[in-house]
Amino acid sequence: MKICIVGSGHIGGGLARAWRKHGHSIVFGARRADDPELGALCREIGATAEPTARACVAAEVVVLAMPYGALDAVLGDIGAATGKIVIDCTNALERGMRLKYGHTTSSAEELQKRIPDAHVFKAFNAQGAENLASPTYPEGRASNFFCGDDAKAREVVRALVSDAGLDPVDAGPLESARLLEPLMLLWVRCSQSLATRDIAFRLLRR
Amino acid sequence: MKICIVGSGHIGGGLARAWRKHGHSIVFGARRADDPELGALCREIGATAEPTARACVAAEVVVLAMPYGALDAVLGDIGAATGKIVIDCTNALERGMRLKYGHTTSSAEELQKRIPDAHVFKAFNAQGAENLASPTYPEGRASNFFCGDDAKAREVVRALVSDAGLDPVDAGPLESARLLEPLMLLWVRCSQSLATRDIAFRLLRR
Repeated sequence: MKICIVGSGHIGGGLARAWRKHGHSIVFGARRADDPELGALCREIGATAEPTARACVAAEVVVLAMPYGALDAVLGDIGAATGKIVIDCTNALERGMRLKYGHTTSSAEELQKRIPDAHVFKAFNAQGAENLASPTYPEGRASNFFCGDDAKAREVVRALVSDAGLDPVDAGPLESARLLEPLMLLWVRCSQSLATRDIAFRLLRR
Repeated sequence: MKICIVGSGHIGGGLARAWRKHGHSIVFGARRADDPELGALCREIGATAEPTARACVAAEVVVLAMPYGALDAVLGDIGAATGKIVIDCTNALERGMRLKYGHTTSSAEELQKRIPDAHVFKAFNAQGAENLASPTYPEGRASNFFCGDDAKAREVVRALVSDAGLDPVDAGPLESARLLEPLMLLWVRCSQSLATRDIAFRLLRR
């Protein structure tokens, strides 16, 4: 797939690394496409970087892996994203680690309203950013819960989750983002009580 | 421990069965303590059944494992539960599988306000009721996320979760019930998309 990743931190960088191994084409969308650190990452994994507005033009999939606070600027850059799959990895938090949107809506649903012609999915938001680099645990792969509405795009997202080294778990319609955003907070609470960030959720099946 | 379990369905019955194997004393609190099915369960596992008001008097731990709709009646029976540990397994749902309480409070916190001298914990609410009977999966035990505020009671609850055959995960203060109640809905969504109830969450650690 032709994938534009907005943001090149733990999430964006981790996804890019994993997806390149599966042959996906990666272009980072960046405010400063000539950033030396980003340049080094691109050379290492065989990706490119461009200003976000240009980076996303040819992309089939746009991954929002920048801090939530940059959303307005990024939406200005990516425009309507018509027909594209937009994967929202952000977490909309207010002070005191409270969700900006609660259980009656979610940041992903609010995003979908702003780009109604894109296929918005929520994924990669609840595992501890740096854990994307090593999603395999002794007991198995960490699960990644994703949700969205479009049936065809759903299979693309499922494959991308798997290509990222995670166990994909379909959590249903985009409305389920109301459950995945609190899941991130549960990850944080468990991380605090266990005093480690090296934890991940997995869905057991028999 | 002396444990009073209110409700003898999948959750209450499953917990009772497991806890009896660890030598805990179990009395079911029931509206109809002479119910023949409940009597058979009691004989099988070595428990007793009494009207709820009487059943909880001597209990150190009271487990609310009845449907949420019965809460008012049960609180009338158990009274202030001063000094007791009260484990809330209920899920407060409204029509359309929506949480009655959202991310700004939770049914467990609302319960604590009503019985301020008890130590309320949330546990056993997000695993599919019947799965309590077989919490071990090929990859390991299902995790059970619990939360509450009292430090001493926390260790009792942790041990009871483990004695129930589950992997206890401390999710922090009672406020985390705002995250565990949505977790139950996530379980439901995954159950729907995977078309099985034989699934459970596990927290992976390295």
